[in-house]
Amino acid sequence: MSGDQQASAGRRLSRRHLLLGGASAGIGAVGALGIDLATKAGPTAVAEPLNGTQTVPFYGVHQAGIDTVPQSNASLIALDLVPGTDAAALRRLLKILTSDAARLSQGEAALADSEPELAVAPARLTVTFGFGPGLVALAGGAAPSWLRPLPAFGIDRLDPAWADGDLLLQIAADDALTVAHATRMLLKDSRSFSTVRWVQTGFRRAPGSVKPGTTMRNLFGQVDGTVNFVPGTPDFERLVWGHAGNPAWLHGGTGFVLRRVAMQLDKWDKLDRAGREASVGRTLSNGAPLTGVNETDEPDFDAKTAIGFPVIPEFSHLRRARSENPDERILRRGYNYDDLPTAGSVSNSGLLFVTFQADVDAQFVPIQRRLDALDLLNEWTTPIGSAVFAIPPGCAAGGYIGDTLF
Amino acid sequence: MSGDQQASAGRRLSRRHLLLGGASAGIGAVGALGIDLATKAGPTAVAEPLNGTQTVPFYGVHQAGIDTVPQSNASLIALDLVPGTDAAALRRLLKILTSDAARLSQGEAALADSEPELAVAPARLTVTFGFGPGLVALAGGAAPSWLRPLPAFGIDRLDPAWADGDLLLQIAADDALTVAHATRMLLKDSRSFSTVRWVQTGFRRAPGSVKPGTTMRNLFGQVDGTVNFVPGTPDFERLVWGHAGNPAWLHGGTGFVLRRVAMQLDKWDKLDRAGREASVGRTLSNGAPLTGVNETDEPDFDAKTAIGFPVIPEFSHLRRARSENPDERILRRGYNYDDLPTAGSVSNSGLLFVTFQADVDAQFVPIQRRLDALDLLNEWTTPIGSAVFAIPPGCAAGGYIGDTLF
Repeated sequence: MSGDQQASAGRRLSRRHLLLGGASAGIGAVGALGIDLATKAGPTAVAEPLNGTQTVPFYGVHQAGIDTVPQSNASLIALDLVPGTDAAALRRLLKILTSDAARLSQGEAALADSEPELAVAPARLTVTFGFGPGLVALAGGAAPSWLRPLPAFGIDRLDPAWADGDLLLQIAADDALTVAHATRMLLKDSRSFSTVRWVQTGFRRAPGSVKPGTTMRNLFGQVDGTVNFVPGTPDFERLVWGHAGNPAWLHGGTGFVLRRVAMQLDKWDKLDRAGREASVGRTLSNGAPLTGVNETDEPDFDAKTAIGFPVIPEFSHLRRARSENPDERILRRGYNYDDLPTAGSVSNSGLLFVTFQADVDAQFVPIQRRLDALDLLNEWTTPIGSAVFAIPPGCAAGGYIGDTLF
Repeated sequence: MSGDQQASAGRRLSRRHLLLGGASAGIGAVGALGIDLATKAGPTAVAEPLNGTQTVPFYGVHQAGIDTVPQSNASLIALDLVPGTDAAALRRLLKILTSDAARLSQGEAALADSEPELAVAPARLTVTFGFGPGLVALAGGAAPSWLRPLPAFGIDRLDPAWADGDLLLQIAADDALTVAHATRMLLKDSRSFSTVRWVQTGFRRAPGSVKPGTTMRNLFGQVDGTVNFVPGTPDFERLVWGHAGNPAWLHGGTGFVLRRVAMQLDKWDKLDRAGREASVGRTLSNGAPLTGVNETDEPDFDAKTAIGFPVIPEFSHLRRARSENPDERILRRGYNYDDLPTAGSVSNSGLLFVTFQADVDAQFVPIQRRLDALDLLNEWTTPIGSAVFAIPPGCAAGGYIGDTLF
């Protein structure tokens, strides 16, 4: 595959590039080191790049990894700054991380990459940074009002081991080895500045497993994330990238929430199919609302059964998650997790419920309050981790993530 | 995509089918449930199945997952039979597991599948069963002489939590959700008969990330597994499927070793590139022996540098792993692991070194003895888990894995 063909493939795949302009679609080290790289001779014998060579631009108005079609593998990592870190050290850390994240995302080795051969297949790698309240304070910035732990909910059974943090890294790609390598390089960069607070890894379907654009399924088998903003639409611009009351340094950024939701698969399995569908308000087969045929059909909350009960029950997740207020909506970008079971248990599974919204208090919290008050799904799910971060805007080449904060 | 096209794709992808005959290439539930399934319109607008629909035949002379091109994701699970399990119960367990493994591998829901929608993308799912000495004794069978813990090696720092077991499940597919679902279904089947002893999950490059046939790289960046048997060759037949002195019930089967090898990535990073290449005896860029140009070049162990030292050092892994005795060879089918780091550490990474060989004592142990005595790689790697299982032969439709044992 020639460099031109690669660049062309990069462009074709980079909606952000088209939307935002000015972003690099370079392939970098691929040409020099890429002996492992995939090309595929199709039926017409035209070499066709496969997943490994695909890149998402790093630089731009917004950070990547938010309006990017979700990759199959993600590692979410929270770091705590070591005591005594000052603003100058924090800037150095952010510059190093930005530089290496940008390089790795384009298939180039990190600056001090000890295993450059592992960098050659970016597989749509994105690295998204988020700032906790401690980091913002250290930099001397104004924190948005919502940058604090979520209010306590009655359903929560939070483990501090899965909560909060100073600096978030969301590292995602369509290849687990790419994620592992990028994770290691970025943790090495950050080691003298910070300690690892938590690591949460998750997965979705591999590329090519299901039709492109298929809504993900969680480990309950449910279609999960049907109603979601479409990048480039006014809703996305306003409710994800919108300014709201956010401080100026955060313009072009957004808010991030991660809820670690344990799923009691065994208990769920005792529920029959009709009970499951009633608890969600959607069919299991294709995720259609119980009043509809197709996944994206608008639910009819007024529809009644022959004996007068609502077709979509009052206690259903679909009804409880839906607000009359169109501002109370969030971008969902979650991952399944299936960690090693602890002694005596059969599974340790659930959902990394990742959401992006410009104003966590105005958009996320009201939804969670309604679900806390009544949602039949609470019978089988338990929030065990919770974290809120501010996602700074993207940066231009030569800048660094967080440069608007200093 | 029509059923015929699917079947054709299944056949094209199923070398075992061609080699062994008689195996089913059915697609099963895909047609009924497969709303999520991927097809891809290629440049000639011919619908082309992608990874999700690909199947590996379950039934056959040998079990799948051994001569199968390694999938991207694997979960290796050891079960302990609950005290009081008798041979009749064990047979029931093996029949249930066989039936569900066969169904799931063809994209069909398990018999009591609680989430059938998760079964529709088999993504080359294979389930391979192995028997520990306790299980063989319970069934009243004769154990091969090598079916016992490996001899103790000086380099070992074994954790009993990663050792031994009664029943092995190797569950592998090109999709993490497929592996998670199959794992859950098979553990549910086995729950009243057994407890989970350990679970070890690993990964390789995703399909399409690198060129098909590329040897895997481990987390040191090394090309890992260059010299390997090719399915269908006399070497494979003799040294993997060969009878050796194995009992009759094991004919068509083989032996399995899993070594969990922790890799000290931080320490490795302190070594320069020349030191790394000397320790392995191969280049990092493409895995060629230090005396060659291409990965598969035969190493020249007699070659000397200008000042008279061997080009491939005496202490190198390549030299120490290689035997003069052509019978001392093994099939390697390993996976990287990168688990959640424990408190205070940056990584928890290494290799699930999985090997298949007809006679563990004659093939595996001599290699390990040489590496134990001298192998510079031991400076950066530590075996922390070890397990040996007998892999029974495959079975015909209507039979079950292990039916030759009863």
